[in-house]
Amino acid sequence: MFLTETKRFHFLLLLIILHSEVEQAYAVWPMPQQMSQSTDRYPINPQLLAFSYARDSAAQSGCSVLDAAFERYFNLIFPDFVGGTDSIRFQIYPIRQFHTHPPFLIKTGLESFSQLVYQDDYNLYFVNKTEIEDFPRFQFRGLLLDTSRHYLPMPAILKTLDAMAYSKFNVFHWHIVDDPSFPYQSRNYPDLSSKGAFHPMTHIYTQSDVKRVIYHARLRGIRVVPEFDSPGHTQSWGKGQPDLLTSCYKGKVPSGTFGPVNPTLSSTYQFLNGLFKEVTSVFPDSYLHLGGDEVDFTCWRSNPNVQAFMAKMGFGSDYTKLESYYMENIVNITAALNKTSIVWQDVFDYLLEIWKGVPADYRAELGRITLAGYRVLLSAPWYINHISYGQDWRNAYTVQPQNFSGTEQQKKLVIGGEVCMWGEYVDATNLTPRLWPRASAAAERLWSDEEKTSSVDKAFPRLEDFRCTLIRRGIQAEPLFVGHCKHEYSGL
Amino acid sequence: MFLTETKRFHFLLLLIILHSEVEQAYAVWPMPQQMSQSTDRYPINPQLLAFSYARDSAAQSGCSVLDAAFERYFNLIFPDFVGGTDSIRFQIYPIRQFHTHPPFLIKTGLESFSQLVYQDDYNLYFVNKTEIEDFPRFQFRGLLLDTSRHYLPMPAILKTLDAMAYSKFNVFHWHIVDDPSFPYQSRNYPDLSSKGAFHPMTHIYTQSDVKRVIYHARLRGIRVVPEFDSPGHTQSWGKGQPDLLTSCYKGKVPSGTFGPVNPTLSSTYQFLNGLFKEVTSVFPDSYLHLGGDEVDFTCWRSNPNVQAFMAKMGFGSDYTKLESYYMENIVNITAALNKTSIVWQDVFDYLLEIWKGVPADYRAELGRITLAGYRVLLSAPWYINHISYGQDWRNAYTVQPQNFSGTEQQKKLVIGGEVCMWGEYVDATNLTPRLWPRASAAAERLWSDEEKTSSVDKAFPRLEDFRCTLIRRGIQAEPLFVGHCKHEYSGL
Repeated sequence: MFLTETKRFHFLLLLIILHSEVEQAYAVWPMPQQMSQSTDRYPINPQLLAFSYARDSAAQSGCSVLDAAFERYFNLIFPDFVGGTDSIRFQIYPIRQFHTHPPFLIKTGLESFSQLVYQDDYNLYFVNKTEIEDFPRFQFRGLLLDTSRHYLPMPAILKTLDAMAYSKFNVFHWHIVDDPSFPYQSRNYPDLSSKGAFHPMTHIYTQSDVKRVIYHARLRGIRVVPEFDSPGHTQSWGKGQPDLLTSCYKGKVPSGTFGPVNPTLSSTYQFLNGLFKEVTSVFPDSYLHLGGDEVDFTCWRSNPNVQAFMAKMGFGSDYTKLESYYMENIVNITAALNKTSIVWQDVFDYLLEIWKGVPADYRAELGRITLAGYRVLLSAPWYINHISYGQDWRNAYTVQPQNFSGTEQQKKLVIGGEVCMWGEYVDATNLTPRLWPRASAAAERLWSDEEKTSSVDKAFPRLEDFRCTLIRRGIQAEPLFVGHCKHEYSGL
Repeated sequence: MFLTETKRFHFLLLLIILHSEVEQAYAVWPMPQQMSQSTDRYPINPQLLAFSYARDSAAQSGCSVLDAAFERYFNLIFPDFVGGTDSIRFQIYPIRQFHTHPPFLIKTGLESFSQLVYQDDYNLYFVNKTEIEDFPRFQFRGLLLDTSRHYLPMPAILKTLDAMAYSKFNVFHWHIVDDPSFPYQSRNYPDLSSKGAFHPMTHIYTQSDVKRVIYHARLRGIRVVPEFDSPGHTQSWGKGQPDLLTSCYKGKVPSGTFGPVNPTLSSTYQFLNGLFKEVTSVFPDSYLHLGGDEVDFTCWRSNPNVQAFMAKMGFGSDYTKLESYYMENIVNITAALNKTSIVWQDVFDYLLEIWKGVPADYRAELGRITLAGYRVLLSAPWYINHISYGQDWRNAYTVQPQNFSGTEQQKKLVIGGEVCMWGEYVDATNLTPRLWPRASAAAERLWSDEEKTSSVDKAFPRLEDFRCTLIRRGIQAEPLFVGHCKHEYSGL
């Protein structure tokens, strides 16, 4: 899917009916690679517009992803329209060349088209004559939600997926479990959530919840990459899986507290094999995020059995070797399940996600890791759970993912990035206004040509407009500055 | 109303039915002045509980404020209860001594009582035997909303009033107009909003909207103090009121831009007299906030007519004298309408609101202004539109409004404070989670004994509980840290 997406697509709106000229240009967010717009405007009558398949298209009616997208975008484009649809709509405005591309590209074309349609003071619909050639700059445009530090109810996740599609994000990185809670309800290990979730009934994701998320995402061209972070960040796992975590010692006796996953026991790998086998069957995506960050060695060091294992393996006192041993094992388990591992940069290998480093530093990390030949995802400058007063979207916008010392070959190893919304201070009460439109700033950086979008001041009015589009679509996106939208948020 | 509120009130729950002992104590936010709680718990049956007037109470059924409060708090205390009410309820748990106090004190008592009721795992209701003596530390506990930089729709304002009552705020400071927009629809000067609002129909407060806000607030023991800030912050006024603003000059010709209100024309004061006459009849509160902050003299200086007026008045080149002349005139207009003026600290006189100064500096300002004998409101450390990552409610909590160099007499001149939510980056999409529970931290500082609430760490679990109470009541209050509420926010 990644490779094919880098194909360019191109569409031209052919609108044949009477038109008039207006001054205003209508923007698309994220900015397309090529776009020319005339002031010729064409009226659109919702009763006469339908999206349809070209006669020679490989996809035809019955392609469920596109059928659903046509329906969805019809409603997004004409929010006021309440008349009947199927019986009276017919194709009068052919939108050409959609049919030559795979469905997810058509979807992004629909999104661009939907943003071009506007209403005049009499609420009539118009579109200017527009020519767009477009493709994403990076193939991996992710957004992370953390459902462990706070549980996010299903509507919050589904709504986030809707908004992701509007900004052309294509990967939902689901940081589903962590220290505070284990909301994933496992078929094979039900105790993980019944004992590890905040509440065993109300604060879990059932198998059908997960299916619904994946289905909802798939219709919107979004992959779902789950993360089961270990060996650290697993306190909640220990509640439902005895002997999984390392027992910490105080002197010669167990202290009663637990540390990271115990990497010395074969039972650990049997359990992880069972869990990952289930998880990779539930989540069809080819990637599995294994975490691997922030492993504290204190507890491992205190435990005599771990010490003995270190001696036996010849690791000396280098606990990073033990960590690597563990990660290698679980990467092998993952590979045997035909999945590709993603890990945080703390781990030395595989597809790496850069999460550490102040804005000045992540460049050095990018240089170092791509020099070693690894593919990378950038997230360090896009931890948008971090907030500050004022227009902090500008920081997210001015990130330059390929501006580091390295060869062209190295730069190609940056396959994209992720906006991370960690959950320490975020739940369903504040998720949406904290995400949007701030995440959309990063979305443009991941999609658009960097030179054409180098001015943050020029981006400002376009992002303001896009934020009003989000509001109109029911996304509770916060304001960038003083002002108003024609249609204010009505979900109060 | 201010003076009588400092009377202490006292209530004792007399609960006679069977009871059992439990360990947990139940907190009230803001913390009462005196509260002792036993582990004896008493079941409460919603079908059997009614609030009623004591036989010898001055207030009796038909007191609309209390009748409404009884109804409201019954529903807040028993959110699950869907059965009939009036016909089957009767007084079986006498709540004593309420009847000796004015209605607004009873309302605060009801709020405290409502927070003491809890449910067990079977959803049965209980209250522990509790004795409370309470009164507010400061008589003026305000919250400012800014409806000019962004328009706030009516439901957002009404919901804010609900939440204010839960934290025992008693003044809604309505910063209703400012530079960006003039949403107040004036009877006498309809052009002010038809030309100065963001939109003349959808982004205004009609007379009936204002009445509804005042009524809603009154039922909750909250005063509504409107602010019509001048002579600066009036760009939007100029759109509907020709010749009100000073025409700025570039050299010898008008530049086409406008500055503060023109203080040299008698037409200015005629207009303001007419406007304030209307405003003070619409807003019954005894206070009117006149603003007076951030007057930029550049435009006044540029205007030859203003220069001539300065010469005529003998002000020399001291434009603060012109500003004072203006403020004196509008304070006199206000006084003639039998209202007390509040102004921001920039103005030298009257009831002053401290808004400037970093946390270390506002103390010096408090010392200086109270030494001059003025009453003051503190808002500088409570600009909670300013956000930072993490638990910034702690900053609001640790403010010490009377910790400045000065006599006891001076300290008594601090009559309270205000939490300010300026609107540059806030509208209905993010208002509620940004306000709550952060504003509640300031509310406890304004209500409770400072020594008894000196530990911010001890406050933390109580504020977490209170936040869950807000969530249960439908207030979209954001989380303080990792965790969950038994009842999560359901307004998605």
